[in-house]
Amino acid sequence: MSLRPSGPVVDMSHSPHAKLRPVPLTAVRLEDAFWAPRLAVNREVTLPAQLKQCEETGRIDNFRRAAGKKQIDFQGIYFNDSDVYKWAEAAAFSLATHPDPVLEADLDAVIAEIAAAQEEDGYLDTYFTFERKPERFTNLRDLHEIYCAGHLIQAAVAHHRATGKTTLLEVATRLADCLDKTFGLDLRSGACGHEEAEMALVELYRETGQTRYLKLAHFFIEQRGKKPGLFGNSAYYQDHVPFIDQTEVTGHAVRQLYLTCGAADVVAETGDTAYRDALEALWRSFTQRRMYVTGGAGSRYEGEAFGADYELPNDRAYTETCAAIASVMWNWRMLNLTGETRFADIMETTLYNGMLSGLSLDGTHYFYQNPLADRGKHRRQEWFGCACCPPNVARMLASLPGYFASVSEAGVHLHLYATGTATVSLPEGGTVRLRAETDYPWNGEVVIRIEEAPEAPFTLYLRVPNWCRDAHVELNGTDIFPTMTLRGRAEIHRVWQAGDTVRLTLPMPVDRIVSHPHVLGNRGRVALRRGPLIYCLEQVDHSDADVWDIVLPDNAELTPEFVPGLLGGVTVLRGQAIAQGTEEWTRRLYRPKEILREPSTRPVSITAIPYYAWANREPGPMQVWISSL
Amino acid sequence: MSLRPSGPVVDMSHSPHAKLRPVPLTAVRLEDAFWAPRLAVNREVTLPAQLKQCEETGRIDNFRRAAGKKQIDFQGIYFNDSDVYKWAEAAAFSLATHPDPVLEADLDAVIAEIAAAQEEDGYLDTYFTFERKPERFTNLRDLHEIYCAGHLIQAAVAHHRATGKTTLLEVATRLADCLDKTFGLDLRSGACGHEEAEMALVELYRETGQTRYLKLAHFFIEQRGKKPGLFGNSAYYQDHVPFIDQTEVTGHAVRQLYLTCGAADVVAETGDTAYRDALEALWRSFTQRRMYVTGGAGSRYEGEAFGADYELPNDRAYTETCAAIASVMWNWRMLNLTGETRFADIMETTLYNGMLSGLSLDGTHYFYQNPLADRGKHRRQEWFGCACCPPNVARMLASLPGYFASVSEAGVHLHLYATGTATVSLPEGGTVRLRAETDYPWNGEVVIRIEEAPEAPFTLYLRVPNWCRDAHVELNGTDIFPTMTLRGRAEIHRVWQAGDTVRLTLPMPVDRIVSHPHVLGNRGRVALRRGPLIYCLEQVDHSDADVWDIVLPDNAELTPEFVPGLLGGVTVLRGQAIAQGTEEWTRRLYRPKEILREPSTRPVSITAIPYYAWANREPGPMQVWISSL
Repeated sequence: MSLRPSGPVVDMSHSPHAKLRPVPLTAVRLEDAFWAPRLAVNREVTLPAQLKQCEETGRIDNFRRAAGKKQIDFQGIYFNDSDVYKWAEAAAFSLATHPDPVLEADLDAVIAEIAAAQEEDGYLDTYFTFERKPERFTNLRDLHEIYCAGHLIQAAVAHHRATGKTTLLEVATRLADCLDKTFGLDLRSGACGHEEAEMALVELYRETGQTRYLKLAHFFIEQRGKKPGLFGNSAYYQDHVPFIDQTEVTGHAVRQLYLTCGAADVVAETGDTAYRDALEALWRSFTQRRMYVTGGAGSRYEGEAFGADYELPNDRAYTETCAAIASVMWNWRMLNLTGETRFADIMETTLYNGMLSGLSLDGTHYFYQNPLADRGKHRRQEWFGCACCPPNVARMLASLPGYFASVSEAGVHLHLYATGTATVSLPEGGTVRLRAETDYPWNGEVVIRIEEAPEAPFTLYLRVPNWCRDAHVELNGTDIFPTMTLRGRAEIHRVWQAGDTVRLTLPMPVDRIVSHPHVLGNRGRVALRRGPLIYCLEQVDHSDADVWDIVLPDNAELTPEFVPGLLGGVTVLRGQAIAQGTEEWTRRLYRPKEILREPSTRPVSITAIPYYAWANREPGPMQVWISSL
Repeated sequence: MSLRPSGPVVDMSHSPHAKLRPVPLTAVRLEDAFWAPRLAVNREVTLPAQLKQCEETGRIDNFRRAAGKKQIDFQGIYFNDSDVYKWAEAAAFSLATHPDPVLEADLDAVIAEIAAAQEEDGYLDTYFTFERKPERFTNLRDLHEIYCAGHLIQAAVAHHRATGKTTLLEVATRLADCLDKTFGLDLRSGACGHEEAEMALVELYRETGQTRYLKLAHFFIEQRGKKPGLFGNSAYYQDHVPFIDQTEVTGHAVRQLYLTCGAADVVAETGDTAYRDALEALWRSFTQRRMYVTGGAGSRYEGEAFGADYELPNDRAYTETCAAIASVMWNWRMLNLTGETRFADIMETTLYNGMLSGLSLDGTHYFYQNPLADRGKHRRQEWFGCACCPPNVARMLASLPGYFASVSEAGVHLHLYATGTATVSLPEGGTVRLRAETDYPWNGEVVIRIEEAPEAPFTLYLRVPNWCRDAHVELNGTDIFPTMTLRGRAEIHRVWQAGDTVRLTLPMPVDRIVSHPHVLGNRGRVALRRGPLIYCLEQVDHSDADVWDIVLPDNAELTPEFVPGLLGGVTVLRGQAIAQGTEEWTRRLYRPKEILREPSTRPVSITAIPYYAWANREPGPMQVWISSL
């Protein structure tokens, strides 16, 4: 099948300050047993089901209402337009890699409804129509008006890149121009309480070449943290200090991480070093003090917010699916901006764990929160009144091939591994086509065969994940010692020939992860990790003991075993642990240790499953951080 | 000094279904070194400062406005009246035990302002005056209208019992009659979103003999949990099921615990067994699965709410001071209802720990939340916009003597211990005067000398706290073996003579408390308890190590030492522990255990202080649950 070449997911290919250039979404074709079936479910089940939800919940009717086609009340929450836009973005990405006349017709129809709802002056937000027209731009803090515009712009850019059509891009540029005529240095201060439009506007600049959009994105970021504050100098809105002075991820997690996406996009275009420094500080704050081992972001239900350093409760982890997606989007920008694989490490961890857990295996149910411990009450839902997460998962999955590779002047960079092909153009000219074969994430053997190469030498950069301690590389059957940078990748520079084969071996022992001692709930506990996957114990696999009572001795051997029929095919970890009796605790909450008998113990067989797959069978307790004493 | 005899704090002395009868507030005179100085600070510092706050924040001006004396806007939050009422209740209690012409004049003046704001029909809520008059009783769920009435009624009952004056009681009965004419079986359904008035109305019934108030209290409780729900059947408002079907403390903690107060009051008057069973189930839910070791209640910031079973995070404990007070109030009712000392155990734990931590040693700063672990950022404040806690602490302290003793037909029950005298009338006739001498809570020796006794025999019931494992009793210098009931008390039945002396010895070893294994954050940790006090480590006493890095070996000896100059005089616990180095964790959040070196350790001297006294010196980390491995 021949595809129309699309643009990249985030088009940093001409960004002057980006080290790497993302490849087009169509450059990578996944044919693996892990992601490819998920992308198929996304196309075949999730996208149609979400469109149905958008219809049935009145989300699309809101556009018809705004266009005067239906005389009805606005339905749902004031930011419901954004769900339709995210669905459209997901559909556009999907069409890029898998043309589908039915989906394309559906998307065209939705775009027609959107376009018809736009006002003469370019304004578009179906909530602020008719009787609420006077309220436009009067409550930027709460009502997500510019946020919705941002999602429309992202959808339009994706649609244009995927299909070449300008139907939605024209709507988006008119709306962006409306914003640009409203806000700006000499016009009106203000920014959205929920960041999103910043990164969208930079992308619109990239797609159209109009610098006013880049300026407006920069303007919106600069609005935050002034005195007096845009939003009372509240950290919830990242308004406590100017962006360049922000050193800790704080407040609403999705807002924070969308802000960093936008700021990273600005840096890629402007090279602003103060922004770059702030991004580095925020990234350290996030990944070194405030991130779950699954990549999840946001510790607090109150405010859907980041907590203090090391505040990472497991049962009450908020870890919104959208926040995990926002982290992937941010780390993708940082990876291309800097070329450093530490960002790909976070991206990979989050994709396989904290993001993927947000979706049921059948593609129809969603988590809003992704806790790391549960008693069996937390279950995925078909939809939400506030339905930000479902279409966000859909757009992430539909765009996933775009996250696997980048190019640079020196060569080709592989960030993620899966069976499939990549066909990329080098900036210096020439095409590289390569094919990867691997059972990743179940097995760390990756065989990469060069199928086409230019005559000039180039470097193949293979990311060595931070979870891997003993990677080795063979070239055409011979062990080699590639240049290993400090930044986690093997570099092989040579003149490549079609047929050259690189075998990257990433051993996947079962690691017991421990966390910083100040994470109060993880003391004396380990999380199991194998390759990029975090594991958990789920009750349905353990009839002999409550999984919260299981203690895993340090010397207990854990054996990986691939079980084809389980949860779509997963490698489980099996071993012997012990279960501690709780007979001393009937009707008791506190007891003096002095009079407490040692708990009875009995051996139990345990089976750990990948975290992303939990809650797809019968409900029961689950735990990621297993007691180790 | 001769005092006018007051009524009890909660007057169950004629309740047909109560086993015990609380003694008048004036029956117990505290002369100890622990509580008596706190009550003095409450009188001399806290009450005047709170009155000043009520004036300066417009809380009293709101009454002047409602009375037409001032042409100003309503100031503050819609339920601000209740803070004035709680202050008035506290002042009334204080006047009962410590007459004070200045305070009495202040209180009379405040009462005059309150009375002047009352409408012809008895309605009184300063928020719903003038332009908001049409909104009366239109949003019972959110606007605390009946809640405020409840606090007025409680203040009025306390004022009447303490002073014999009817000035406030007349206001309260008119308001209660206004409620009674508005709500009821044949009138209008509804109840307040925030419970409070239920217990107040039962007390008003007790004070006035008017059964309509008891019926209205019962009616309000019965409104909850119907289909369709009063408040959408939301558990936040305890509206998920009818009260008799409630088995788990849930939703907003203060609301839940005020509801149980009201229900217990109803049971004392009616003997309703379904209510009694529900109270028992709720008490088990609370104390066996959802209560902090400090007695604190409420695990979640979101909704100021109870969490799931065993969900008891330490750093993010919400544990509102008001919820601790509500628990004391509920357990006091249950104690007198049943005569069972398990309720006094919870009351004592909560008074000495989760309640008392709400107030600074100087009596001028307050905690709203009382966490069990902190990094030094949580500090007491002088006042709050939502200032429910400060006057709640004041009324609890001012009424404290009333919680020490009860009588029954069989004799005298001592619940709490402190140096002081109790002069009580037995229901069967005769007066008992006794004096207790003790250094409680620092020392568990309590010497009780009978100073006056009737000729007929009676039983002296001495509570043996649940924290004590080896209590023994001497009578007139000879060891005796009093009848020990299953319910935690020593009973000595005899004909008593003036001069008889009972020595109750409650050994106070330092106990290491452990918690149910499903409390995720307490795994491998102990809390130190000595007598009724829970201890903590505070950074200011530990210059050598972050207190979060301290590990207390099981065999480390901890030595109590009374330090007169410290924190108003406290017994600290001193010992040797170890500090674990965190050098492996610089800029790291997660690491594989396989490559992690054992942390370096070094011996550190530790000094644990009573939890209630933390955050009175320089800010720094604090921890109750200390790692023991």
